[in-house]
Amino acid sequence: MEEEFVLAESKLIYKGKIISLYLDKIKSPSGQILDREVVKHLDAVGVAALNEKKEIILVRQYRHPINKTLLEIPAGLLEDCESPAACAIRELREETGYVAKKVEKLAEFYTSAGFTDEKFYLYFTEEIEEGEPARELGEEDIKVEAIQLKEALDMAASGKIEDAKTLLAILMAALRAGHLEF
Amino acid sequence: MEEEFVLAESKLIYKGKIISLYLDKIKSPSGQILDREVVKHLDAVGVAALNEKKEIILVRQYRHPINKTLLEIPAGLLEDCESPAACAIRELREETGYVAKKVEKLAEFYTSAGFTDEKFYLYFTEEIEEGEPARELGEEDIKVEAIQLKEALDMAASGKIEDAKTLLAILMAALRAGHLEF
Repeated sequence: MEEEFVLAESKLIYKGKIISLYLDKIKSPSGQILDREVVKHLDAVGVAALNEKKEIILVRQYRHPINKTLLEIPAGLLEDCESPAACAIRELREETGYVAKKVEKLAEFYTSAGFTDEKFYLYFTEEIEEGEPARELGEEDIKVEAIQLKEALDMAASGKIEDAKTLLAILMAALRAGHLEF
Repeated sequence: MEEEFVLAESKLIYKGKIISLYLDKIKSPSGQILDREVVKHLDAVGVAALNEKKEIILVRQYRHPINKTLLEIPAGLLEDCESPAACAIRELREETGYVAKKVEKLAEFYTSAGFTDEKFYLYFTEEIEEGEPARELGEEDIKVEAIQLKEALDMAASGKIEDAKTLLAILMAALRAGHLEF
């Protein structure tokens, strides 16, 4: 199907640090011209990290767009010339202090493909060692919480986790770690 | 923590049909002024609908921001004066023809709270009846696919589902329908 939609016009409205906004016109297979608002966004990476007590390492932080704090997996934006796996290890260390020896990929997904091209790379690790957070102070006000995976799953099922990538991380980590059976 | 961050300035860059873009300045607890790019987005609703064969009803559609087709749950934007549950039933009918007698909420989550306030309401139903899609032709070029829940779970685990809400819907529907055990 993708060959049949054609970009007819693209107008840059705003070019920023993390996002850019475009107003596009596309031509549908039936010849209709459709308007599309498109937010181009840097790719992002996060990690579901379990310690030896089977706790998942989460961070609580303020999110300005929704004016509240969310409990989330450690995550951040993919920097130039960095692999997604290296980014997962870097963000985990910066935000929580935990050092992962290795990570494996759980999933790659688009966060909201109706309006943005943001892609998220989700990693998993059960091999972590405690250390000191190395984040820049002031910019990020982050509290680290370690929660039993079973309790995190209950929180996900009962609406206490409100962040999409973190819901996915908890569910996929439970599947990966063999705690969920079909 | 949310009391300690204060909005210092908000500048509207673009006001559109589905999204608006603001450049905000916020003051952190330590007194730093931070720049934030914020996309305000209408809330959205989707539904994990299982038929009597335990198949999940999905739709394949073109997504312009990523220039490819994705396999997704039926979903759409919440319209004024409509409840999220009514929206879930409407979108299911419009996009697939299936009529749900009732739906129950599986989750509410923010799709990418670092830059957008978009909130997603995810519903579940096992009580659906086949009918005719009622969508506007041309605007949406949608193909309906019914996939065994077990197969959809395998697709989620092996990277064949690339849409965040759909990954979540498959995993949470499997939990809800008793197909995943902790």
